[in-house]
Amino acid sequence: MRIRGVFPPITTPFDRQEVDLTGLRRNARRWMRTKLAGLVALGSNGEAPFLDEEESYAVISVVREEVPRDRVLVAGTGRETTRATIAASERAAGAGADIALVRTPSFYKSRMTSEVFVKHYTAVADASPIPIILYNFTAVTGVSLPASVASELARHPNIVGMKESNPDLAQIAELVERTPENFSVLCGSAPTVYPSLCVGAAGAILALACVVPELCVRLYDLVQEGRHAEALALQRQLTPLGRLVTSDHGIPGLKVALDLAGYVGGDPRPPLLPPGAAAIEAIRDQLGILMELTVENAS
Amino acid sequence: MRIRGVFPPITTPFDRQEVDLTGLRRNARRWMRTKLAGLVALGSNGEAPFLDEEESYAVISVVREEVPRDRVLVAGTGRETTRATIAASERAAGAGADIALVRTPSFYKSRMTSEVFVKHYTAVADASPIPIILYNFTAVTGVSLPASVASELARHPNIVGMKESNPDLAQIAELVERTPENFSVLCGSAPTVYPSLCVGAAGAILALACVVPELCVRLYDLVQEGRHAEALALQRQLTPLGRLVTSDHGIPGLKVALDLAGYVGGDPRPPLLPPGAAAIEAIRDQLGILMELTVENAS
Amino acid sequence: MRIRGVFPPITTPFDRQEVDLTGLRRNARRWMRTKLAGLVALGSNGEAPFLDEEESYAVISVVREEVPRDRVLVAGTGRETTRATIAASERAAGAGADIALVRTPSFYKSRMTSEVFVKHYTAVADASPIPIILYNFTAVTGVSLPASVASELARHPNIVGMKESNPDLAQIAELVERTPENFSVLCGSAPTVYPSLCVGAAGAILALACVVPELCVRLYDLVQEGRHAEALALQRQLTPLGRLVTSDHGIPGLKVALDLAGYVGGDPRPPLLPPGAAAIEAIRDQLGILMELTVENAS
Amino acid sequence: MRIRGVFPPITTPFDRQEVDLTGLRRNARRWMRTKLAGLVALGSNGEAPFLDEEESYAVISVVREEVPRDRVLVAGTGRETTRATIAASERAAGAGADIALVRTPSFYKSRMTSEVFVKHYTAVADASPIPIILYNFTAVTGVSLPASVASELARHPNIVGMKESNPDLAQIAELVERTPENFSVLCGSAPTVYPSLCVGAAGAILALACVVPELCVRLYDLVQEGRHAEALALQRQLTPLGRLVTSDHGIPGLKVALDLAGYVGGDPRPPLLPPGAAAIEAIRDQLGILMELTVENAS
Repeated sequence: MRIRGVFPPITTPFDRQEVDLTGLRRNARRWMRTKLAGLVALGSNGEAPFLDEEESYAVISVVREEVPRDRVLVAGTGRETTRATIAASERAAGAGADIALVRTPSFYKSRMTSEVFVKHYTAVADASPIPIILYNFTAVTGVSLPASVASELARHPNIVGMKESNPDLAQIAELVERTPENFSVLCGSAPTVYPSLCVGAAGAILALACVVPELCVRLYDLVQEGRHAEALALQRQLTPLGRLVTSDHGIPGLKVALDLAGYVGGDPRPPLLPPGAAAIEAIRDQLGILMELTVENAS
Repeated sequence: MRIRGVFPPITTPFDRQEVDLTGLRRNARRWMRTKLAGLVALGSNGEAPFLDEEESYAVISVVREEVPRDRVLVAGTGRETTRATIAASERAAGAGADIALVRTPSFYKSRMTSEVFVKHYTAVADASPIPIILYNFTAVTGVSLPASVASELARHPNIVGMKESNPDLAQIAELVERTPENFSVLCGSAPTVYPSLCVGAAGAILALACVVPELCVRLYDLVQEGRHAEALALQRQLTPLGRLVTSDHGIPGLKVALDLAGYVGGDPRPPLLPPGAAAIEAIRDQLGILMELTVENAS
Repeated sequence: MRIRGVFPPITTPFDRQEVDLTGLRRNARRWMRTKLAGLVALGSNGEAPFLDEEESYAVISVVREEVPRDRVLVAGTGRETTRATIAASERAAGAGADIALVRTPSFYKSRMTSEVFVKHYTAVADASPIPIILYNFTAVTGVSLPASVASELARHPNIVGMKESNPDLAQIAELVERTPENFSVLCGSAPTVYPSLCVGAAGAILALACVVPELCVRLYDLVQEGRHAEALALQRQLTPLGRLVTSDHGIPGLKVALDLAGYVGGDPRPPLLPPGAAAIEAIRDQLGILMELTVENAS
Repeated sequence: MRIRGVFPPITTPFDRQEVDLTGLRRNARRWMRTKLAGLVALGSNGEAPFLDEEESYAVISVVREEVPRDRVLVAGTGRETTRATIAASERAAGAGADIALVRTPSFYKSRMTSEVFVKHYTAVADASPIPIILYNFTAVTGVSLPASVASELARHPNIVGMKESNPDLAQIAELVERTPENFSVLCGSAPTVYPSLCVGAAGAILALACVVPELCVRLYDLVQEGRHAEALALQRQLTPLGRLVTSDHGIPGLKVALDLAGYVGGDPRPPLLPPGAAAIEAIRDQLGILMELTVENAS
């Protein structure tokens, strides 16, 4: 199995701070009417560090019911200890996840050496009943999983890919080059999807794909078909909203965009704050442009 | 109540990865035979992010049994969400903690604005049955609680102090100046205890105080008595081991030092790795010097 | 005039620490036998901050004699003050440069606001007898010229392009999008040339192009012709040496590579140190691979 | 000779962008009526990177005429190459400087290894006709001179001290401990003068001492006399203006403060911009408080 294509790292909707499983199911069902390769539950955009283990299990279970077996359900299972990560991966598998997305541990930053990463991921991959994807997100964790470590870990039969959220293309390209053909490097940054695919990324995990899944899939398809000029043009159209729902306004912005697009968005859990009026207007404007584009493409 | 004096942020001993409550109790009992102002359980040095809620409760309960009522038991209760932090503070209070030490939330770094911190800490302080201490540890969290925010929060009747782990004395001095007399600024960095006390810090929370509590208390006392030359001389003797059990070798180093000093140290939970032989030798050497000094001072 | 294609930021050879104009001329002559778009003298790789104004003038003059009028001679003229930058640009024009490459001032980092950059570059562009290219190299300067500022400055008739040395493709793409068609965004990082060209960069200024100019030009041509698979394959072959002569071993490594490739390399000025034996071996190996490839391509 | 006491890193006044030697002389004369230990010309606050070699020579020569032989004239001579630094130190000595203050070279940051620093400073110290002071200013240079390197260099007979501008007291304390008694560690950050002196710094080089020299000298004297409470109180009064003329508003702010205090301030050279009206008001307020304090202390 090679992971490829576009995945949305889905949000976790809340209703007065409680997980809204009904809203979650509604969203999942709608996403599954598009050509997304699957869903990623409990990634950073899913407010995973905000959920307890029971809530996490419920989220995966509900989503699994909506994701058919021929699409891939990825679930975030990274925890700070090796044993908690293994336990979370086992629970995720039990709840129906196909793949575990395992963020680097990072609390004790200065201790997170290459040796620590190799031992941690090897132990998790050895124990996990489902394959795992490495996940490097330096802007959030403050640590970096070097390409040399990823390259070594890529030889493990139960480690099948890596999500890299850094827009540094030198890093993406190095990961592709230093890992086997069937290891999937996945881009995690909306503005660099097109160039990442150019240098060999297998796909992308994009907040933006929660909001405008069809266009993100189309971008992927255009590159597969070698239609570079069109791909670049579409990338340029997608980038502004991509920034608004990530670096500019984060999860609160993403949830606003979902609400505006007819999905169940809602507020994040505190201490995250809903975005201000100006942010909402900016999101509405960019979303409007992309909705029209979606319709045009569909017809 | 003004928090003052020296506190050790105690480690959590493990026996084959399970919390060793017997060892924990033994350590606590021994610490209480010194003149430490109290204990801090479940701080960063307590591997707090590695424990689940049940383990955390057990740790606080056991330690409380060893900390007499005239000394202060502080417990770390910082979580990523406001509600989880409140819940942890309530549980800690229920288990007998006098004070909650609340680390800044930090996962979604770019969203951690001053407004977010003010709302988060205000909500926690409003709800917590016990007073709270703010906790800023930028090297670990990647976010910084500005002095202006601390100054605003210091007006809340249930916020009684702040632990600042940055060795930047401009920051420590600014915190002291911008907060009321009865608000306790606590130094969290061994090499800067003496100058921090010079500029008005009320005390210190020091990994080193787990290993050589008597000397750390003596340093504090010397400054209170205005014996600056002796305080500086002692600070210089303490600094090398202080570095070895924090910035140089972290919790694994601290646990080695505890073992060597006759406490229950043990291994950290993976992915943290025990230190190598050279680190152990360096710790042994510095500890030997300080043990002799402890004996000299005692006689 | 739109700047496009591949430029090498040429080194300044020294003979016992004095500028070796003869060696410089020999190198320039040989580069001009390739299809490079021109040369960049006195960039960061030219040890520009190590030369005085007289030496700088001599370097430009000699290089000009070897660069025919139908190719472009760019000269670095960035200084810390606006007036010194203007004076250097005037001297460079007098010595025959076609374009001035103006690095951001950066010594007083915290004062380098957008307003400062706009005023500085506008004054330089107003006064310079030759067009200027903005130059952002955050890894060296510690400051960043935001895309919004570049976008504003791109409207000045005497500002014709920007060199961006950051491998962040989101940044490169944003610069391309926010500047007019005839404004040239030039990539300054060897591992990201191919994706940069994909998203619309007009060319590249590459240390690697000093050593293997033909292959760098070929990479550019392949992208122009839409031969993406071949371009990617060549990019992958070029990246390892590209890293060795920049991030890994810097100018000292680049000069070793030049010596090995039959150019005049030599030692940098102290305090820069020549690389060690292991670095030289690594460079020799990668250079060997690329030399063979050059011959294959030529035949 | 051991360097000790308080030094102002004097500004370079300009009159329509040309060095105003008359204003400079006037300032120097007035500073010499206080008990400052001497003057530092051409430091970072002297806009040293903005002056050419001739201007630099003129500045030192004029200042020397006003600094009597029993006070110390320090001149900044750091350049990017070893040979230019040596040449500048020789010229400074020729113009009458007693000591050369040598900032770390820093342009090629990633190449600035410990070995490079040791070789550079050793060569400069070997060749300089006057003793040198190491100068570490990471916030500006982006590189750091480690305590281990300073410790090694401190053994050179012609290296007599180090200015450390970082407010990290762990660093200041480590420098004091790892260097001989007669090696002077000088604090370069106004908010941390008092604690730096507590841990053994020999003195301070302070922008603030340009504006309120008497109070800065008094702070130093109070610590020498062991009057800690008074020293701390004075430190607290000095800190706000200290911040305004450095981290908050930099040289432009310092020059405004000088104008307000009756010295020759003036505008910095572009691209530095004069501060806005709000900054000027804040400076005026804090300066007013300190001027009154100066008068009180004098009477």
